[in-house]
Order: sequence, then structure tokens, then C-alpha cells
Amino acid sequence: MALLARSRRLRRTPFSEGVEAAGVGAYSVYNHMLLPAYFESLESDYAHLKKNVQVWDVAVERQVELRGPDANKLMQTLTPRDLRGMLPGQCFYLPVVDETGGMLNDPVAVKLSEDHYWISIADSDLLLWVKGIANAYRMEVLVEEPDVHPLAIQGPRSDELAARVFGESVRNLRFFRFGSFNFEGHDVIVARSGYSKQGGFEIYVEGWDLGMPIWNALFEAGKDLNVRAGCPNAIERIEGGLLSYGNDMTRENTPHECGLGKFCNTQTAIGCIGRDALLRVAKDGPIRQIRPIEIDEKVPTCDRAWPIMSKDQTIGSLTSAAWSPDFECTVAIGMVRMTHWEAGSELLIKTPEGPVLGTVKDSFWT
Amino acid sequence: MALLARSRRLRRTPFSEGVEAAGVGAYSVYNHMLLPAYFESLESDYAHLKKNVQVWDVAVERQVELRGPDANKLMQTLTPRDLRGMLPGQCFYLPVVDETGGMLNDPVAVKLSEDHYWISIADSDLLLWVKGIANAYRMEVLVEEPDVHPLAIQGPRSDELAARVFGESVRNLRFFRFGSFNFEGHDVIVARSGYSKQGGFEIYVEGWDLGMPIWNALFEAGKDLNVRAGCPNAIERIEGGLLSYGNDMTRENTPHECGLGKFCNTQTAIGCIGRDALLRVAKDGPIRQIRPIEIDEKVPTCDRAWPIMSKDQTIGSLTSAAWSPDFECTVAIGMVRMTHWEAGSELLIKTPEGPVLGTVKDSFWT
Repeated sequence: MALLARSRRLRRTPFSEGVEAAGVGAYSVYNHMLLPAYFESLESDYAHLKKNVQVWDVAVERQVELRGPDANKLMQTLTPRDLRGMLPGQCFYLPVVDETGGMLNDPVAVKLSEDHYWISIADSDLLLWVKGIANAYRMEVLVEEPDVHPLAIQGPRSDELAARVFGESVRNLRFFRFGSFNFEGHDVIVARSGYSKQGGFEIYVEGWDLGMPIWNALFEAGKDLNVRAGCPNAIERIEGGLLSYGNDMTRENTPHECGLGKFCNTQTAIGCIGRDALLRVAKDGPIRQIRPIEIDEKVPTCDRAWPIMSKDQTIGSLTSAAWSPDFECTVAIGMVRMTHWEAGSELLIKTPEGPVLGTVKDSFWT
Repeated sequence: MALLARSRRLRRTPFSEGVEAAGVGAYSVYNHMLLPAYFESLESDYAHLKKNVQVWDVAVERQVELRGPDANKLMQTLTPRDLRGMLPGQCFYLPVVDETGGMLNDPVAVKLSEDHYWISIADSDLLLWVKGIANAYRMEVLVEEPDVHPLAIQGPRSDELAARVFGESVRNLRFFRFGSFNFEGHDVIVARSGYSKQGGFEIYVEGWDLGMPIWNALFEAGKDLNVRAGCPNAIERIEGGLLSYGNDMTRENTPHECGLGKFCNTQTAIGCIGRDALLRVAKDGPIRQIRPIEIDEKVPTCDRAWPIMSKDQTIGSLTSAAWSPDFECTVAIGMVRMTHWEAGSELLIKTPEGPVLGTVKDSFWT
């Protein structure tokens, strides 16, 4: 594995001190910031995550803050999801698209109040798109990256750990809802959400200096729960069908290709910049789509899109893959043309170390 | 040094195969793409660069392409530099600013023709800002990331190497001019430019598949010139005062704070989005500015902004530092308040391993 050269440009987070002390094994870089990739090993972190509870430094989920009378209008400009029913206290997963319907990001928006949102972003500088739009349309809204740093609690023992630090009432939070909870005199936003299928919370830590106190409180409170430092786990997220922007989708793809059609209410999402293009796609449907793909054997690290072939024709590309200890196969995600996307279709995948056979599955592994 | 976990999201380049074969020592990540950080070591690469010639994979300088009748108008919207005098065949270094005059990027723009530009960007998704502006203003211009991948030739023997591959006439290129040259039947844009002070060229390789043939041709032609794979060198670029977006400046800073006032013709740059804010700054001048700072001793890797103190007051921050074998001191770049920015001012710099003393220099080290 290659080394990562450090510089200020690859930003540290409020939790980096804790991450280093916990013995991070490798980093990725995400939104110009350090994202742990594993601690002990992918496999060992994975096994622990599924049975216990972990604390994740996901400060790389940078926030784009909208505040002002035009915040609602600007939000609807960004996405084909109809936001009229969104209430303060809710989190919405959103495709954000450009004028051609190409995916710019797939964030979770947090509605703090009628004129105040945080958009918790995937790996692209969405701030620049939102600022550009807001400025050119002269909208009455402030657009900034606030001093907010998400920290996740994930795993089956998340409720127990969160309750010990934020109080019993945190257990009552419904999925993709948030509330304000007390931590040592500070009001802290906690949402039931996170980038795993094991359940848990995301804490929106407001203020850099509050980072390590919350980190330390969670580890102190969770000793007997076998709490560990963790991070989004490549195996678990593929099993669960959690897509990764930049890996499984790019600006080349529409939400429909990414299987996000259920988040597109394109008819009624009036104001969405990509609406014209997506009305067309919504009518005809996509000609390629993301699929779970199962491979019997182990494969190399998927560090580039691997062509998926049928005879001499390229009919897709595979973009994420990892060996699953639980399912005893390689779990993978790929974009496949409609001629080959039915469950059971057999695919030939060209890895840098030679071709392997895969099969389209009818659902992800959870 | 930490490990870097690989994934498709951290994009490979057309030259990655060559970079790996040459034994890259560590990577950084830049514009969601792999950027070599050193090969043998920072010091050994540095010594070689100053005496010989190197080939650099700088495909991370992604291009934002503008094409169409409103390309000129859109370009001027982006920057306070007056572009009316820019001719096809020229490269311009440009501050790109938001509506508050904050730096969004410091690219080199390449004017291919009256309605066609490539903007060769630093580390932020400038494409999203430019697309947002162009779309909201309904400008008649296409904005895309084209299939173009810069490869640099840098070092004192650059002319000799470039001439062997692209023909003798490449020697006649003036600084920040480009021309079209023949490579095995392809027209290739070559500019006299690059991110070092050792002279050289940047080749705008059009088409992924042309990458390795040009890479290989350069190494074949340069055997007796002691050509090596290299990359932007942290020591050499600090000595030469080449700023790094994300390290030495961010959206927090105006061009004037970055010492880029000479690239601001704010009075006449009509249309520039940050003009109103920068007219104010141009009038009063900045209250802090980038300075070369010399430190006698060695310091740790500068992976975060280090506070610069005077008594108990923070009067700046230091953002890049490296030990210079040639100047036998630590060469550094920092942002310093006007009360302490005069040459000769003594500064106390708080590194994570303790305080060190530095001195403001009147110029960089070349």
C-alpha cells in the first residue's frame, strides 16, 4: 500500500488526535480532509462493527449551511426530490444534480428550521455550486461552511452508548430525525443516521473545541460495551448497498442510473435545475443502472473502474468490491446496461489481474 | 508516515503506470486524483531537479474547459485580472474569487482561441462554481472537464529534452506562451510553464491513451540527460515562493493577502463577481499578507496551520515549511499581520513539538 504525504491541504479534523491515538491503519482523503479507512484491518473492523459499537470521525462530511429567507427556494433548486413536505427536525437523503441531471453529490440535508439547513455532503465541493447558484440568482441566503464536524456512533450497541452520554431520550429518535441534546451544558444536534446498516447516530459537533471532549466522553462511557474507533467500512457498506459518490457514481450518472429514482419527484420538484433533463430520463427510464454483483473469488483492490464485458462488448463497469467474510464471496457494485441487468445475468469483469466471473443479484446482502 | 487506502474515488491518471514503475515513494491527493509527493526522497528529488530534468505527472491539474460565444465574458466573471489584453497562445495566472473576494482557486488559464479556454486548476472543484455561474446567468458556453491531462518537464535540461521529442522549435516558446507541436502524428499543446523555478514545459496531453506513449518517449529520449520521474517538490516550491492553494491560502483569503495584488486590475475587471468587495480591499490594502519566513532549525511536517505569536497574541499562521539543503535553514511560508510583516521581524511559531523562532525575509530564496 502507498504512503500518504501530509500537508495542511489535507485537513485534520477535531478528532484527529483521538484517531491517531486509537492507531488508525490507513487514511483516505475526502473533501480535502483526512478520513480513516481502517484501524486494525478492514475485516477485523467489520466483524467488530456488526456486534458492538464504534465511534467514527466523519468530519469529512462537511456541511454547506443555508440560512435566510430564500433557503427553501435554494434547496429545491439543487434537487429533484420534492422538499415541500420536509419539516424541521427531519433529515433527507438527496440527489443533487446539474442542469443535465448529472449527479454532483448525494448529501443528507438537515432542516434546522424553516430558513436554516445544513447539507452534509459527499466528496465534491458542493459549496462552490451552491454559492455560484445563490450568487448568480441573487438569492437572499447566506451560504457557508460552518464550524460543524460530524461524529458517528454506529453498531448494534449504539443506543446504549448514546443514551449514556446524551440521555435516555436519545433512544426515542426515529430514523432520519434529529433532536437537540445536552452535553456538558452544550446543545448538540444528534440524528439517527449514518453510513452503515448497523444502526446508530450522527452527532453534529458545533465548534472545533468540543470535538475531543465528546470523543473522550464516548470512549469513557463505552468501556464495558467494547467501544472502538472505527470508520465507514468498505465491506459493510457494499453489503448494505450504500453507494459512494466518486466510486459508484459521478457527474456522468443520473440519479435514476444510481437507483435513486425513488428520491426524484421530478414532476413536482419545480425549480430544480436539472428538472428538464430528468423529466426526459424519468419518462424513458435509464439504460444502465447500479446493481449488486457477486463474485465467487477474491479480487484485487478496486482502485479504478473495471470494464464489465459480454463477448467483446463493454456493457458496464464495476466500481467497488470487497471480500465479505460473512457471505464468503466478493460483494461488489457496478453499473450495468439494461441488456444484462436482470438478476442472474452472468458478467465477465476485467480486473487488472485478469478476468473474473460475476453474477447480478436481485438485492444487496442485508 | 500514514498509509493511503486506494479506491476509484482517488482517481488514477494516464501516467500512473509510469509513476508506479518509477517507484513513487508517497502520494498526495489533489482534485480527487493521485499526485506523487516524492520518489526517492524530498531531498534527493530536489537536488536532482535543480541540476537535471524531470518528468512530472501533474494530471491532477484538471482542466475546466469553456467553449462558446460567452467564454470571454464568463472568464472575466471569475477573476479580478483584466483579461481584455489576453491573446490566443497566452497562459495567464489568475486569482479566482467569490463574491466576497475570497480565493476559490489560483489556476493558469490557457486561451486556445477567442471562444475557447482551458483553466488548469489548483485543488478545488472549480468546475462546480463555473458551471453554477454559467447556468444561472444562462450564458452561451459549454463548461466541461475535458479528457486533458498535463504532464510537466521541469529542470535546467528541459529545453534539450523537449526539443528531442517535440522538435527544435519548442525552444523558441516564451514564458507562459504555448504552441501546438507534433508527437507521432498528434497535435499536442505545449506551454513554457510549470510549478517550479527551474524552467520547463507543461504538455496538455489530449486523450487518455496518448499518456503513456508520451511518458515513454520522454524517458527514452532523455536517458543520457539523467531524466527521472519527479513531482512538484515541497522544498523547491517554498524556496521559489510558489504558493499552494489549500496550504498557503484558502477561501478565507483575498488575492491581496496572498501577494497576488499584481494580478488584480479590479477597477477595469468589469464583470468580476468579487469586484465590489475587492475594490474596497484594493483601496485600503490588506491587513495581513503572505511572507517568506526563515527558521534556523528543523521543524516537523507542517500538516496544519501553526499559530504565529507575539507575546500572547496570535499575529499570523505558518502553513508550509521544509528544510532546505541548499540554504541550510527551514524555508517557510506564512500569513502575517501588518504589525509584524516587515523584513527582519522576529516571530514565535508554535509547532506541535514546541515553539521555534523565525524571521520574516524580504524575498523568497531564489
